[in-house]
Amino acid sequence: MNNRDMKWTAKEKKIARKAFDNAYKKEMKQIQKTIVKKVKSFSEEQDVWRLHDYLSKKRKEIDEKYDYRYSVLIFVFVRLMREGFIVEEDLEGLSVNKLESIKRLLDF
Amino acid sequence: MNNRDMKWTAKEKKIARKAFDNAYKKEMKQIQKTIVKKVKSFSEEQDVWRLHDYLSKKRKEIDEKYDYRYSVLIFVFVRLMREGFIVEEDLEGLSVNKLESIKRLLDF
Repeated sequence: MNNRDMKWTAKEKKIARKAFDNAYKKEMKQIQKTIVKKVKSFSEEQDVWRLHDYLSKKRKEIDEKYDYRYSVLIFVFVRLMREGFIVEEDLEGLSVNKLESIKRLLDF
Repeated sequence: MNNRDMKWTAKEKKIARKAFDNAYKKEMKQIQKTIVKKVKSFSEEQDVWRLHDYLSKKRKEIDEKYDYRYSVLIFVFVRLMREGFIVEEDLEGLSVNKLESIKRLLDF
């Protein structure tokens, strides 16, 4: 079955939502930490705009990445696993079919 | 004489440049302080994007405000004095003509 056409049960949706939200929180925490580090090492005026550039880039990236449509969710999860924001256990309870698709894409 | 047509002597240019650069530094310091305050009070994910919004607004504002063309410098100085980034003493040494123009605009 095509990843885009997979059906998601109510139980799977709950697992998916939780994994998705936790990944978002983790990544935002990481961004916050980077901001704190950048702010602590402010030394010249331009550093303020460098921080702005960083945030513009991250905002665009985050907006594009965290796309909770079931038609693309498998791909989103694969990316979040690659980046370390989701681990295998977070997805426990999804159908074997979905987990295998994720594994296949991860190995790709 | 129209403010836009005023001639600037070498000595005046030096004074103007110094006042302008100091004002920029002061304002950037103020922005840095605001950033530190905002970062210290980060509590939820959205605060990161609120900081980004703040920086986008400030960057636009600063880019527009700090316009070092002699044709507009009198107006720039008036604004910076209103906002407290330039004080009268910073402009000591400019021609009476210029100082009076600034004063007139400030009282306006």
